Amino acid sequence: MTKIGVFDSGVGGLTVLKELIHHLPDESYVYFGDTARCPYGGKSQETIERYSIENSLFLLEQGVELIAIACHTATSLALDRLQKTFTIPVLGVVEPAIEKMVASTQNKNLGVIGTRATINSGMYQKELAERLPDATITACSCPLFVPLVEEKFTNPDILRLVASEYLQPLKDKNIDTLLLGCTHYPLLEQIIQEIMGPKCQLINPAKTFAENLQKLRGKKAREAGNVSFFVSDDPERFKSVGETFLGFGMDTVHKVSFS
Amino acid sequence: MTKIGVFDSGVGGLTVLKELIHHLPDESYVYFGDTARCPYGGKSQETIERYSIENSLFLLEQGVELIAIACHTATSLALDRLQKTFTIPVLGVVEPAIEKMVASTQNKNLGVIGTRATINSGMYQKELAERLPDATITACSCPLFVPLVEEKFTNPDILRLVASEYLQPLKDKNIDTLLLGCTHYPLLEQIIQEIMGPKCQLINPAKTFAENLQKLRGKKAREAGNVSFFVSDDPERFKSVGETFLGFGMDTVHKVSFS
Repeated sequence: MTKIGVFDSGVGGLTVLKELIHHLPDESYVYFGDTARCPYGGKSQETIERYSIENSLFLLEQGVELIAIACHTATSLALDRLQKTFTIPVLGVVEPAIEKMVASTQNKNLGVIGTRATINSGMYQKELAERLPDATITACSCPLFVPLVEEKFTNPDILRLVASEYLQPLKDKNIDTLLLGCTHYPLLEQIIQEIMGPKCQLINPAKTFAENLQKLRGKKAREAGNVSFFVSDDPERFKSVGETFLGFGMDTVHKVSFS
Repeated sequence: MTKIGVFDSGVGGLTVLKELIHHLPDESYVYFGDTARCPYGGKSQETIERYSIENSLFLLEQGVELIAIACHTATSLALDRLQKTFTIPVLGVVEPAIEKMVASTQNKNLGVIGTRATINSGMYQKELAERLPDATITACSCPLFVPLVEEKFTNPDILRLVASEYLQPLKDKNIDTLLLGCTHYPLLEQIIQEIMGPKCQLINPAKTFAENLQKLRGKKAREAGNVSFFVSDDPERFKSVGETFLGFGMDTVHKVSFS
């Protein structure tokens, strides 16, 4: 049994934890959601690197042997820095999804959606272009998707209007493979699929990441794992929003403070 | 000339600074926007108190003689703590607006809108009820208004749909005086007025706060004031979004870090 640390800017990374638990149920998990400082999506590289290092140090103190960055913004902007800083393996959520996109596309029109920081970093676009130099890659940030999901704003007219406005440039490019480059977006999968049409394949990195880690780690261990939850702000709000992301309830969420 | 410190969770407080500069152009100002940790609206009292103290300490280091809390969330949750902690005057943005509401209402149906933290704190509702015990007070949080403004999401159909959904319970109560209890909301004044109807008076606390401070301070000084800007995250993003709030450009924005 390996103790796996997962950190995220907030609740969104629970979609990644959910897939990890589903694919690797025997591992033990420590989840940290940086809810006091979330969201990361509009912040600078320097700030996101600093937060990611603090989050990783906290997970190291909990004895984790591997760190998975669930947050795409932190993956895009801080993965490299974390891998250079720490001796234990640090994995970003997106690499297996990038591989899957390259293998799946038929027309080589690829799309990426994410927060402003993720899209502006250009990291996913660069990784796709390196693997598939003749692809056309269209990237759009969809900054309202996160608050829409977190506020449980389920009015379908509003969701459809916002999503249509963001996704139209991707539709115009005849995208056949679209990366959901933010932990919250799988919760809007249905409406995104509806707008992009049935021919467009949506790639959920949480799923491909967990599938990939399962392959890497081989057979399951015999011991049953457990999951601990830590946040930097109100545990109750985290529990209440988080259960939508995780698909099951959390017993105890602990609060920690860095300063 | 007094050196006035203004802090906010981010750019929103620039609507308050704008009114202060308009009404008290001869004072000197230090503005701090806690952009690395914003937004405050969904966070807990403990976290917001801690951030507000750190922000105030920073302003004290800059030599301010008076602190104005521009952020409604911090006013609701941390004003009392700051007033007990620091010897210099600390003013919250809302009190003059509360007085104006009490003086303005005809039918005693009062409304308050703000972030989730502001509304859940119940502070504004309590202050209104103390002054006008027979009033009916309806409060609604509108969590999507902040991202809509910050993302400059100007599609009027979406703004109207979101605003209608939030404001319907207030319309149903025949509100004649509505407090815009968040620094961002004055930027949506037109659409809020349209939905609430011409008989509903919207109260912009930034304006009443500045008018009130002008009265308190009496005649203008002769010296010309100046304004300094500090943030805890990317100064460029702050400048680009902030100029919409402030109504004029900023020369230099300095970055500071607390940890």
